[in-house]
Amino acid sequence: MANSKYEYVKREFEFHRHLPASNWIVVRIDGCHFHRFSELHAFEKPNDDRALRLMNACATSMLEKFPDIVIAYGVSDEYSFVFQEKTELYQRDERLIISSCSSCFTSFYMMKWKEYFPSKELVQPPHFQVEVSCYPEPRIVCDYLSRRQSECHNRNQYTTCFWMLVKSGEGENKAKEILKDTLPKDKNELLFQRFQMNYNNEPAMFRKGSCAYRQKVEASEDERWDVAVAHVDMGPHFWAKHSYVFDRR
Amino acid sequence: MANSKYEYVKREFEFHRHLPASNWIVVRIDGCHFHRFSELHAFEKPNDDRALRLMNACATSMLEKFPDIVIAYGVSDEYSFVFQEKTELYQRDERLIISSCSSCFTSFYMMKWKEYFPSKELVQPPHFQVEVSCYPEPRIVCDYLSRRQSECHNRNQYTTCFWMLVKSGEGENKAKEILKDTLPKDKNELLFQRFQMNYNNEPAMFRKGSCAYRQKVEASEDERWDVAVAHVDMGPHFWAKHSYVFDRR
Amino acid sequence: MANSKYEYVKREFEFHRHLPASNWIVVRIDGCHFHRFSELHAFEKPNDDRALRLMNACATSMLEKFPDIVIAYGVSDEYSFVFQEKTELYQRDERLIISSCSSCFTSFYMMKWKEYFPSKELVQPPHFQVEVSCYPEPRIVCDYLSRRQSECHNRNQYTTCFWMLVKSGEGENKAKEILKDTLPKDKNELLFQRFQMNYNNEPAMFRKGSCAYRQKVEASEDERWDVAVAHVDMGPHFWAKHSYVFDRR
Amino acid sequence: MANSKYEYVKREFEFHRHLPASNWIVVRIDGCHFHRFSELHAFEKPNDDRALRLMNACATSMLEKFPDIVIAYGVSDEYSFVFQEKTELYQRDERLIISSCSSCFTSFYMMKWKEYFPSKELVQPPHFQVEVSCYPEPRIVCDYLSRRQSECHNRNQYTTCFWMLVKSGEGENKAKEILKDTLPKDKNELLFQRFQMNYNNEPAMFRKGSCAYRQKVEASEDERWDVAVAHVDMGPHFWAKHSYVFDRR
Repeated sequence: MANSKYEYVKREFEFHRHLPASNWIVVRIDGCHFHRFSELHAFEKPNDDRALRLMNACATSMLEKFPDIVIAYGVSDEYSFVFQEKTELYQRDERLIISSCSSCFTSFYMMKWKEYFPSKELVQPPHFQVEVSCYPEPRIVCDYLSRRQSECHNRNQYTTCFWMLVKSGEGENKAKEILKDTLPKDKNELLFQRFQMNYNNEPAMFRKGSCAYRQKVEASEDERWDVAVAHVDMGPHFWAKHSYVFDRR
Repeated sequence: MANSKYEYVKREFEFHRHLPASNWIVVRIDGCHFHRFSELHAFEKPNDDRALRLMNACATSMLEKFPDIVIAYGVSDEYSFVFQEKTELYQRDERLIISSCSSCFTSFYMMKWKEYFPSKELVQPPHFQVEVSCYPEPRIVCDYLSRRQSECHNRNQYTTCFWMLVKSGEGENKAKEILKDTLPKDKNELLFQRFQMNYNNEPAMFRKGSCAYRQKVEASEDERWDVAVAHVDMGPHFWAKHSYVFDRR
Repeated sequence: MANSKYEYVKREFEFHRHLPASNWIVVRIDGCHFHRFSELHAFEKPNDDRALRLMNACATSMLEKFPDIVIAYGVSDEYSFVFQEKTELYQRDERLIISSCSSCFTSFYMMKWKEYFPSKELVQPPHFQVEVSCYPEPRIVCDYLSRRQSECHNRNQYTTCFWMLVKSGEGENKAKEILKDTLPKDKNELLFQRFQMNYNNEPAMFRKGSCAYRQKVEASEDERWDVAVAHVDMGPHFWAKHSYVFDRR
Repeated sequence: MANSKYEYVKREFEFHRHLPASNWIVVRIDGCHFHRFSELHAFEKPNDDRALRLMNACATSMLEKFPDIVIAYGVSDEYSFVFQEKTELYQRDERLIISSCSSCFTSFYMMKWKEYFPSKELVQPPHFQVEVSCYPEPRIVCDYLSRRQSECHNRNQYTTCFWMLVKSGEGENKAKEILKDTLPKDKNELLFQRFQMNYNNEPAMFRKGSCAYRQKVEASEDERWDVAVAHVDMGPHFWAKHSYVFDRR
């Protein structure tokens, strides 16, 4: 074959990396330069309801496309997908998993854009990046998800204060200064005293992020599952109710 | 911090893999289930001129977005991008390079779709996968590109014969049988004898694929470069003329 | 510094690979060209009692040197060491773990040689190789050990038959032919019929290999542990009795 | 097979990592806790001539055992071995290369001990560790070697001063204080002023380390190569004379 003298470029230089067996695979997708992307498309501050629901719709499509995703959690422009321990998706080839998730999520985002922003043209292509981690036990996956949710809480409380201050006339630097070194309870107090806002009444999607998981369709005769999206604490109560998520298949 | 007890999920389980220094990085993007995607969107067989020009437009956007891509080569639903030896893109982090290229290419494909298929709605999200290889010397990168081009030649000659036979009334299985074990010259002869087609007169884009590279803008006073797309043999003649491709350090 | 212009060789090219957290690390040491080594030093066939006891003594020294080894299993010229799930030995750096185990085991082997072969000079340096695997659960570590022990059984039964046949006058090729495709019970039968040997009466160290683990020193007032070596089945009975081996520390 | 149910522990969990093709492989062996080892065996300070010559003898044995080592450089208790770019040793399997080099070097060290320390018993097993790096070009290998040699110079000049001061009656802390922040020329001056020692007259093996490489045997009719050990600057002059080192493909 004319081609055979070039065979070595594949044989010697192409390696496949497989993620370790019997580990839960967490794929985290993250928007790249989304600060600018959100300004270009005039997202509302600090949270844009449509943009978040668009992210949730993409996550739902991901769970529908990849049956081995058992749960997903998203906040702002990021979403984490947990693949079940035994998944053989692409023979656990790291590069194919990363690039497929990155490409599919981007595709879904653009396909669904019009549904959530019917009067707004996409003027810049969205761009996502992906990281991947492997966790040997459900307990550690839960800690991972708690970590994301705890960051969501801290970040959202901060940005809520920041934008309330800015909208009330403070400059951005002044707002940062006011918030420097404040504790969570200080921020709640600030919102209440200055703006008569009870932070705990803010929409749960903003405060707790979004969790997408499978649930049995109640009325169905044969066993059917669909994807639910909820804005709840992923603590002991949640896991007691959804323990099936980590059940081996 | 409330978050600190979850810190270990990051510290102990997130590793960054960096591609080896002083190596040319080749990122190959490949359509996933594009057989079905091309049927759904009624691409012409064996080659759809608009679909190929759409791929080339995406490649051009990639070269514009990533200044460290020195050359790219595409055929059918795949495209290979060569990043220069010293690139510090994402500190050579393998996962960020793979997921970014995968996401950006997908984004470009969807943004430009309407331009090349103005009367056709996208009915399925396109999905690409990415592989990556590292080559320590330009000579091996050239061999890699020659390998892709040699495969392009073999594959295109085969599918040209196949579709001519099918369009002339042979069943798909019969067509495969006729072509089994034929040599390149047999296929040329078949096309000529049976269909009065001279394979070498087929469009160069179909036979040789597409090569995207930077070239100096002639008339410009200050040094300016734009991206050219050509359908040529990437042999000694090409490299003699474009030796600068591997000299940009 | 005069040295600083060479700094990049370290910064850009030295990567550290860390074994995944919360996984049991199994380091398997294997003699290299030990067929020849055993001939040069006139080891008895099929099993040399002194050579096996030397291996066990080296394993004991390994458990004494590395407190994170929880159990080890050896047969012929190989030994597997299980490091506990949470070990921070060399920060789980793969290369340092591999090279240290390889060097230390070699060192112990040579230091102890005279004790087991007092009248035989070492005439060739012994040479060991190491592989490493990570297992997320004790259950899989047990399966790994069962696999090694099952191979020990098959291999030892075969070589026992082979050497009995050879010593009785059959040529080596003839012996191989006689044993081809025989089942375990055929081999037991052959030993009994032809040589009046009951395989199950052969020394347990030959049939079951050697298992090195920590056990509490009975008489001690304060809690003290030493290393025991036993030749037993590592099945449910063994694990019930030694369940502490996998207890988290 | 009884064994087949355990097969998965190998199939799913044993991965082989191959070092990238067309790269020079540098294996660096380093003594572990050699400070204590050298005290236990009463090595002379700051340099023990016999201990260094023992290291050089081991390096020579390594070059004899592994024909793909093209050059080696050693100082104190470390030695770096450069394997040629195309080596197929153990199919470039990282773990086998690391563990073999670590085991063989340890073996040689113990085998040759008596030759260099005839009246001293080995009272502690020596223990080495190994790191590995890949360099795509000879130029970078040379920079790596220069870096090691530059460190040798700095370290040896420092320890020479330190031990002269200590032997002259200064405490160890006082000696460190005197040397703090001194430049190389300050140290030369100190040795000359205080001890009438011209540092440049110290043995080259101490100041420049040891370089082991192959050289053609002059008188031989058929082409024969043996291993030379020299104590020279590995600068342009050296490489001009030994350019063949990087030409053996």
